[in-house]
Amino acid sequence: MKFLRFSDGGRVLCGFTDGEKVFQVESDHYLLEDPEVISEHNMGDVKILPPVSPSKVICVGLNYRDHAAELGMDIPDEPVIFLKPPTAVIGHGDAIVYPAMSSEVDHEVELAAVISERVRCVDSEEADEFIAGYTVLNDVTARDLQRRDGQWTRAKSFDTFCPIGPFIETDIRPSNLDISLELNGVLRQSSSTSNMIFTVQELVEFISEIMTLEPGDIIATGTPPGVGEMKPGDTVRATVEGVGTLENRVESSDIQ
Amino acid sequence: MKFLRFSDGGRVLCGFTDGEKVFQVESDHYLLEDPEVISEHNMGDVKILPPVSPSKVICVGLNYRDHAAELGMDIPDEPVIFLKPPTAVIGHGDAIVYPAMSSEVDHEVELAAVISERVRCVDSEEADEFIAGYTVLNDVTARDLQRRDGQWTRAKSFDTFCPIGPFIETDIRPSNLDISLELNGVLRQSSSTSNMIFTVQELVEFISEIMTLEPGDIIATGTPPGVGEMKPGDTVRATVEGVGTLENRVESSDIQ
Repeated sequence: MKFLRFSDGGRVLCGFTDGEKVFQVESDHYLLEDPEVISEHNMGDVKILPPVSPSKVICVGLNYRDHAAELGMDIPDEPVIFLKPPTAVIGHGDAIVYPAMSSEVDHEVELAAVISERVRCVDSEEADEFIAGYTVLNDVTARDLQRRDGQWTRAKSFDTFCPIGPFIETDIRPSNLDISLELNGVLRQSSSTSNMIFTVQELVEFISEIMTLEPGDIIATGTPPGVGEMKPGDTVRATVEGVGTLENRVESSDIQ
Repeated sequence: MKFLRFSDGGRVLCGFTDGEKVFQVESDHYLLEDPEVISEHNMGDVKILPPVSPSKVICVGLNYRDHAAELGMDIPDEPVIFLKPPTAVIGHGDAIVYPAMSSEVDHEVELAAVISERVRCVDSEEADEFIAGYTVLNDVTARDLQRRDGQWTRAKSFDTFCPIGPFIETDIRPSNLDISLELNGVLRQSSSTSNMIFTVQELVEFISEIMTLEPGDIIATGTPPGVGEMKPGDTVRATVEGVGTLENRVESSDIQ
């Protein structure tokens, strides 16, 4: 099922959707298999929120074979991880704000796993038990600052630099899904999750050996080839097959 | 005043201390100027907890002139930041667990500012209004993994790698304080916060231009010279003059 969070005028509500209707459920039934529906809304009448409020967002650097080939880089032996702060998270339809500090802001479409319960040191074979489902994430990156700092944190951490959503799809296997991104309707990134160097389950094992994962935490699994610049006024649509399409507009920071 | 959080058998309580007694206050009076005392405890009878539960811990790389000189590095033009996850936070007296992934785990004593209210894009001149107080932080680092990854996140993010505490000192100016660290009673790090390249207020300005700061967020301000290895069985005492002494023992992960 496709779970989402939404508001109908202030309150944060939880529900699932068939694509047209939104079925509200009790928030403590969120992500349950057979949640009781307490009200029904038209998708067009609700404001979609980020599907989860992660306590941390853990991202992985180079994790697509075709992206490594594009960059002329060796396949890494181990994942390289970095964190995005919770304050960077926005939802479907929210604006990505172009920061004054940067003049080169890139898109990076990624498949993201959502953790279901607290876990530490889980084996990849059991990792699926701790994944609630999958969503789409745009790992927005100030490429100029990434180059300048060496460390990636500043470049990846601006407010609005972590769009996620619109849904958490709970019934999908992540190993062979088309993943793509359109900028102003033009295809810029296109690959398959089958090109991942480390599988989602291997990433969960690796990361959970470092840090305890909490319910709602996000693991972003790397981006395929074709990353490139966005400018204020652009519309970016990030899609993972069967998971959803996450659309955001880029705005200048002047108008904030 | 020195504020702290503590437990007397399960519940998380808030209070302040004169060094011998702990005076419990209502948690919504925590960090207020004249909190009403609701009970009194002996310091030895309570378990000290981390003084705050940050939604994010933002750290700064090289920020001491004497440390830059020690490393033969130029003084940076801008701070380089990185994040530690909330799951790394432990309190005074808790064990730093030596991870199986590393064989070189270092101490780094730091002065840490605690944010008092939500703020974005604050000038350094007004930054003090958004700082609740100061605490001591040990930026525990797996140096071998830091070198191997290039990115610092894994090396800095293991569970227990962010001891903070014991208190939040609300009445202190941070610009000229002795800062030191003893390993098993031997002085390893010793400097003054006057050697900082970027002041606390300049760091708050820089970081708040990147990300919204939330109440309880921690800004760690860099470490002075003398960082070095810790081994299981070691006791590490990190001190900032007038702020407090944070003591932790290092344990092998085998006994967890």
